[in-house]
Amino acid sequence: MIPTPIEPAAAPPRVGRLPSGARDAITDVAGVTVGHCTLAHDGCQTGVTAVLPHGGNVYTDKVPAAAAVINGFGKSIGLVQVEELGVLETPIALTNTFSVGAVAQAQIRAAIADNPEIGRAWPTVNPLVFECNDGYLNDIQAMVVAGDHYARALTGAGVDVAQGAIGAGRGMSSFGVKGGIGTASRVVEGGGRRYTVGALVLSNFGTPESLVLAGEHVGDRLSATLATSLANEVAAPEKGSIIMIVATDAPLDARQLRRLSLRAGAGLARTGSVFGHGSGDIALAFSTAYTVPHAVPHQDATMPAVAMLHETRLDPLFRAAADSVEQAIIHALWHAEAVTGRDGHRRASLRDVLAL
Amino acid sequence: MIPTPIEPAAAPPRVGRLPSGARDAITDVAGVTVGHCTLAHDGCQTGVTAVLPHGGNVYTDKVPAAAAVINGFGKSIGLVQVEELGVLETPIALTNTFSVGAVAQAQIRAAIADNPEIGRAWPTVNPLVFECNDGYLNDIQAMVVAGDHYARALTGAGVDVAQGAIGAGRGMSSFGVKGGIGTASRVVEGGGRRYTVGALVLSNFGTPESLVLAGEHVGDRLSATLATSLANEVAAPEKGSIIMIVATDAPLDARQLRRLSLRAGAGLARTGSVFGHGSGDIALAFSTAYTVPHAVPHQDATMPAVAMLHETRLDPLFRAAADSVEQAIIHALWHAEAVTGRDGHRRASLRDVLAL
Amino acid sequence: MIPTPIEPAAAPPRVGRLPSGARDAITDVAGVTVGHCTLAHDGCQTGVTAVLPHGGNVYTDKVPAAAAVINGFGKSIGLVQVEELGVLETPIALTNTFSVGAVAQAQIRAAIADNPEIGRAWPTVNPLVFECNDGYLNDIQAMVVAGDHYARALTGAGVDVAQGAIGAGRGMSSFGVKGGIGTASRVVEGGGRRYTVGALVLSNFGTPESLVLAGEHVGDRLSATLATSLANEVAAPEKGSIIMIVATDAPLDARQLRRLSLRAGAGLARTGSVFGHGSGDIALAFSTAYTVPHAVPHQDATMPAVAMLHETRLDPLFRAAADSVEQAIIHALWHAEAVTGRDGHRRASLRDVLAL
Amino acid sequence: MIPTPIEPAAAPPRVGRLPSGARDAITDVAGVTVGHCTLAHDGCQTGVTAVLPHGGNVYTDKVPAAAAVINGFGKSIGLVQVEELGVLETPIALTNTFSVGAVAQAQIRAAIADNPEIGRAWPTVNPLVFECNDGYLNDIQAMVVAGDHYARALTGAGVDVAQGAIGAGRGMSSFGVKGGIGTASRVVEGGGRRYTVGALVLSNFGTPESLVLAGEHVGDRLSATLATSLANEVAAPEKGSIIMIVATDAPLDARQLRRLSLRAGAGLARTGSVFGHGSGDIALAFSTAYTVPHAVPHQDATMPAVAMLHETRLDPLFRAAADSVEQAIIHALWHAEAVTGRDGHRRASLRDVLAL
Repeated sequence: MIPTPIEPAAAPPRVGRLPSGARDAITDVAGVTVGHCTLAHDGCQTGVTAVLPHGGNVYTDKVPAAAAVINGFGKSIGLVQVEELGVLETPIALTNTFSVGAVAQAQIRAAIADNPEIGRAWPTVNPLVFECNDGYLNDIQAMVVAGDHYARALTGAGVDVAQGAIGAGRGMSSFGVKGGIGTASRVVEGGGRRYTVGALVLSNFGTPESLVLAGEHVGDRLSATLATSLANEVAAPEKGSIIMIVATDAPLDARQLRRLSLRAGAGLARTGSVFGHGSGDIALAFSTAYTVPHAVPHQDATMPAVAMLHETRLDPLFRAAADSVEQAIIHALWHAEAVTGRDGHRRASLRDVLAL
Repeated sequence: MIPTPIEPAAAPPRVGRLPSGARDAITDVAGVTVGHCTLAHDGCQTGVTAVLPHGGNVYTDKVPAAAAVINGFGKSIGLVQVEELGVLETPIALTNTFSVGAVAQAQIRAAIADNPEIGRAWPTVNPLVFECNDGYLNDIQAMVVAGDHYARALTGAGVDVAQGAIGAGRGMSSFGVKGGIGTASRVVEGGGRRYTVGALVLSNFGTPESLVLAGEHVGDRLSATLATSLANEVAAPEKGSIIMIVATDAPLDARQLRRLSLRAGAGLARTGSVFGHGSGDIALAFSTAYTVPHAVPHQDATMPAVAMLHETRLDPLFRAAADSVEQAIIHALWHAEAVTGRDGHRRASLRDVLAL
Repeated sequence: MIPTPIEPAAAPPRVGRLPSGARDAITDVAGVTVGHCTLAHDGCQTGVTAVLPHGGNVYTDKVPAAAAVINGFGKSIGLVQVEELGVLETPIALTNTFSVGAVAQAQIRAAIADNPEIGRAWPTVNPLVFECNDGYLNDIQAMVVAGDHYARALTGAGVDVAQGAIGAGRGMSSFGVKGGIGTASRVVEGGGRRYTVGALVLSNFGTPESLVLAGEHVGDRLSATLATSLANEVAAPEKGSIIMIVATDAPLDARQLRRLSLRAGAGLARTGSVFGHGSGDIALAFSTAYTVPHAVPHQDATMPAVAMLHETRLDPLFRAAADSVEQAIIHALWHAEAVTGRDGHRRASLRDVLAL
Repeated sequence: MIPTPIEPAAAPPRVGRLPSGARDAITDVAGVTVGHCTLAHDGCQTGVTAVLPHGGNVYTDKVPAAAAVINGFGKSIGLVQVEELGVLETPIALTNTFSVGAVAQAQIRAAIADNPEIGRAWPTVNPLVFECNDGYLNDIQAMVVAGDHYARALTGAGVDVAQGAIGAGRGMSSFGVKGGIGTASRVVEGGGRRYTVGALVLSNFGTPESLVLAGEHVGDRLSATLATSLANEVAAPEKGSIIMIVATDAPLDARQLRRLSLRAGAGLARTGSVFGHGSGDIALAFSTAYTVPHAVPHQDATMPAVAMLHETRLDPLFRAAADSVEQAIIHALWHAEAVTGRDGHRRASLRDVLAL
C-alpha cells in the first residue's frame, strides 16, 4: 500500500506587512553568523548559542551596540560596559543562568587567544553573556556548560540558523510549552536605501493563558489543553526571561541603537507579555554598518567618518525591530520540538498541543 | 409618529480578564479625582486636564511616584525631580506642548497659595506637566492656555471622568481619527488583598494602518476608509505622543512604581504602537497607599512605617497596568467625537469611520 | 596729593595644569556666545542668562548634546528630549526656579519667530531652561521674569562674558556668600589636535564650612568670619543647586558628551560639594564640531559624516571639563559683588569676607 | 651599641570633620564582616575579598542595595538585577577582571549549598562580583582564581579588616604606587539618631601626578620621585578602576541608597580622579537596617514595615559616604606594602616613595 505522504508542515504565521530577508533570520544582516552547541541527554538539556556580528576580530574591530533592560530580573554580564562605551568587543553568547560565568571565562580566553596583549599591554576584554533559566527541563545546578561548549558554538557558526530546542534554547520553556531559539528578519526602505533588521531570541517566558500568536489570542485554548494533558502536573511558576538580539546594517550610533533595542519590547508585548516581574527581558541591538577600531590609550586610532541615519528615518527600523522580535518568538515556538528532561519534566511542542 | 428610539451606544470592547472598578476609571483608586478645562472655539481646540492624587495638600503630603520614559520625544516638566526624590508634590497636569510653561507657572502659584512659605523659608515646588502636540486641530502657536485654565481644571475635579475630546484631549488625534482623554481601571488580588490600578491617558499617537482595537487588527480598514473620506487631504505625518498616568492603592515605593509605570508600554504596544520616533511616550505611576510628609531641612519629619507589597506580588498589578492603559486608549478613541479646528482641519470619530 | 593708585585686584587662583583659552571663558569654544539680562532693584534680584552654541538657527542646525543629572533636585525643562535625541534645538537658558515656565514660553516664541512652521507642518520645539533658587535675595514668588528678558539676553550675547552677580546669577548664593555666573576654559591636545573645553556655571550651592578654594580648605575661616559678621542673622538652610554647562569643539557624539558632562561633577566635588540632597546639580555638555540638520518626517535630510574622537582620546577632555567647572565656580565667587535684596537679605562678596 | 628604636608609623592623614566608628572600617556598621583570600607567589599576585552584609542567609534575607555606575568601563556581574529589584542576595565579592566568572560560579554554588531549592522550586540567584584589572603585577591571563578562593574569603570573614596589598587588592595599583583594599567609617547624627556609614574600596586607579592626599596636592612630588626611581621603566598607561562599597545602618530604600552610592564619587574626585575613561568607577551602597524576605512567586511573604529616613536627613549621610570613601582610599595607599609581581613588575609603597 502506498503510504499517504506526510503533509508538509504549514509555514508559521507571519506578522506585519514588511518583507523578510532571504532567510528570515538575523543572518540576513550581512556578516552576522550564529552557532549553537547543544547538550541533550537525560537531565542535561542546555547549551550555548553565539551570535557573531562579523567574521573578523571583534576585539580589534568593535561593533556599535546598546541595550534596553526592559525588566532587569537577569544575570547577564557585560552590559555595564556596553552602555558606557557603546560597543561590543566579543561575540554575543547566550546560555543558561548558572553558566554565565563559565561562558564569560571562555570568551576571555578566546579573546586572548586572538589578541595576546589583552591584559598585558592592552586593557582587558568585556565578556558579554546573556542567560535564561532552563531549570525546569535542565538540571541547572549541575553547571555542566564549559568553555569548550562556547568554542564549539563559535566553530559551528554560519548563516543557516537552526531554531527551537537547540543551543542555549535546548531547555527553555515559553507559555507552558517548549521555547528556545527563534530568529526572523524584516527589510525596510529609508531615505532611498534598503536596510535589514534581524532578530534572534532566546525565548523562555510567558504563561499559557497569555499567549497571543500572530494576533490570535490562543492562550485560553493553550491553557485548557495543557491543563488536560498535564494531568496532575502543576505548572511551574513563571521564572522566565527572554533575550532579544537585534542586528541591523543601518548606520546607527549607540544612542540610536538603544532606541532600536527598546522596540523589541513592543514585539514582545504583542505576544501577551506584560514584562513579568520574574522575567529578565533584555534587548541588545548592534549595527554592522561600521566598526570602531581598538586603540590602547595614548596610541593613535582613527575613527571612521560615518553619516548616521537621520533620526527621522528610524520609524521603519523601529517597526522592523518589533516585527522581527515578535516573528522570532513565533519561530521559536513553532520550531521547538517536545523535550523531556530532568526528573521526567516535559515540555510539549506548541504545534502538537494546538494541532497547528 | 413615535420615533424609533435611538439605539443606545454599544459598549466599547473590553480587553483582558481582570474586572474593572465601579467606574472603570482612574478614580476607582480611592481619593483620585480628575478635572478638565476645555477650550473649543474655531481654531482653538485645546485644554488642560488635572489628575489629583488625593484631596489634601499635595505639597505637604507628597505622593510616591515614578516614571518610565519609553520614548523621550517630549517636553514635560518635572520628571527630573520625580526620578530623584520619588514623589509628586503637585497635581499632575496635562496640556498641549506649547502650554507646559504656562501651566507650570500656574502650578507654582497654586502651591504657593496653599503653602506661602514655598520659596521663602521652605524650598521651591516641582511643577509636573505633561503634554502632547495638538497642532493639527489646534492653533498651538496661539499659546492661549493660561493659568486660570489650570485653576478651572482643579476646581472641577471629581470622580466622574469625562472622556474623549475634552480637557487636554480636546485637540488630540490618534490613528488618524480623534483621540483625547481615556480612562479605565482593573482590580486585582494580591496576598489576600484587593488592589485597584487605574489609568488615564492623553492619547495623541498612532497611524491609521497600525491600529489594533482590543486585539482586532482594524488598521487596514481604518486606513482604507480614511483614504476615501479624506479625499485629497494628506494625512499629517505622525507627530503624536501619549501620556499614561497609572494610579494604584497598592503600597509601592518609587522603585516599584517605576516598574509599574513601564508596563504601560505593554498596553500601548498592543494597540499597534512601536513607540514611534516622534511620539513622546511617557508613563507615570503613583500610589495612594501612603504619603511622604514635607519637611524643611533640619526640621523634624517622621516617615510613615509602610510595609510595601512584596516584589513577587507585582505581576497582577503589572497586568492590570497594561490592561488599564490599553483599555483607556480604547476609551479615548471610543468617546472622542469628531472635531473641526484650525484651518478647517478635521478629525473624525473612530466610531463613525468604522461604524462601530 | 596724588592718591595712591588702587591695587589692582589680584587674579583669582587657578586650578590644574592645563592652559586656558584666550578669554578663559566658555566663549573660547568658537561660535559660543553668552548674554545676560539682569533685574536688580530692591527685592527683585534675578535675571536670565543665555548660552548660544552657534550664531545660526539652532532649530534647523541642531547641536549634539547630553546631560548628567548628578542630583535631580531641580526643575529644569528640556532634558527628557535631550537625553532621547542627543541634540539641543534652542539656546540654553538659565534663570530662577519660578521663571522656567516663562522663559520656556519665550524660547518657543523665539523659535517660531525664526521657523514659522514649528507646530504647523513641522514638529514642535524643545525648550531648554535650567534654574537655581535665588529666593534668599530675590522675591522669587513675584515671578517677574518675562519673555522679554530672555529676548534681551539673546540680543546682548557676545564673546565677552560678564561674571558674578549678573544675569541668572544676580540673586544666587554659594557657600554663604554671593554666587552667580562663572566661566572658564581649558585647552588640551588629543591625537595631534587642539581642542577647547569651556564651562559656564550658575553657582548657587554650598555651605560656608565646606568651601575648598583652589585646593585650599578655607571653609572654617569663611564660616567663622560669616558667623561674626552675620551677627544674629541665621544662615539660610542649604537650598542650593548648580548648573554646569560644558562646551567643546571636539567632535563627540551624544554618548560621549554625556560622559564629558558627568566630569563636571569631579570639578564640583573639589570645591567641597558632596552633591547635597537639596542641591540640583545638573551638567550639560554640547559640541560645536558639527550640527544635526532638522528634518521633518518623511523628508530628506543628510547627516554629516563625522569622525568622532576616539574614546581613548577623552581623558584630556575629561580633565579639562573638571578643571573648567572648578575654575568657573571660583570665578563666580571671585567676581560676585555683594548684593542686598528682599527683606534686607544680604550676601557678602567672598573676596571681602576673606580679604582676598 | 643600642640601636635607635624604629619610629612608630604615623597615623594616616584624616579627612573631614566627622568622627569615625570604633574600627574606622566598614565593619563599624553592625553585622558587616569582611574576608580576604590572598594569592601571592611570583607572578601570581591577586585574590578575592568578600563583604558580608550580615551573618545570616543573605539569599533568604536579602539586603536593600543600589549602585551608581560613575564610569562603566568595568566587567562586574550582578548590577542589572540589583538595579531592578533593589536588593543583594549574596555577599559582595571583589576580585581581578578575569576572575569574575569563576567567582560568580562559586557564589552560585555557595547559595545553592545553603538553599538547595535555588534553580529548582525557587528562582535562581544573582551573583554580585566586582573587579579591577591587576594585570600589571599579576599574571591575569593565568586566571588562577577558583571557587575555593571565594569560599576561603567567606570563611575568614570578620570585623577586623586587613588593608592594603591583600585579598582582591593584592595586585592592584593606584597613582603609580601600590593600591589595594582600604576601609573607613564615619558616624553621623540625624533626627536624634546615630547612624554609621562605612566604606570599603578596591583601589586601582589614578596617575601619579594627579594624587591629592587628604587635601594636599602631592602628585607632582610623587610623579617626580617615581620618575627617578623607575629609571627607564615606562609607567603603564592608566587601566585602572575603583570599586567603592558603602554600608550603612540607616533605614534607606533602594532609591535612597542609589543617591548615597553616588556620593562615593565626591570622595573619589577629591583624591584627584576625574573618572578617567579607562577606569571602571562603580559604587554600591547597602543598608543593614532591615532585610527583604525571599519569597517564591505565589507564596506568602510579608514585607517589614519600615520607616525610612526622611529625605531631608540624608545630607549628613552623603557627607559621611564621601568622607569614608576618600579616607578608605587613603588607607588603601597607606597600608599597601610594595609588591613585586609578574615579569619583575614592581609597585612601591606610597609611604616609601613620599617618606611618609
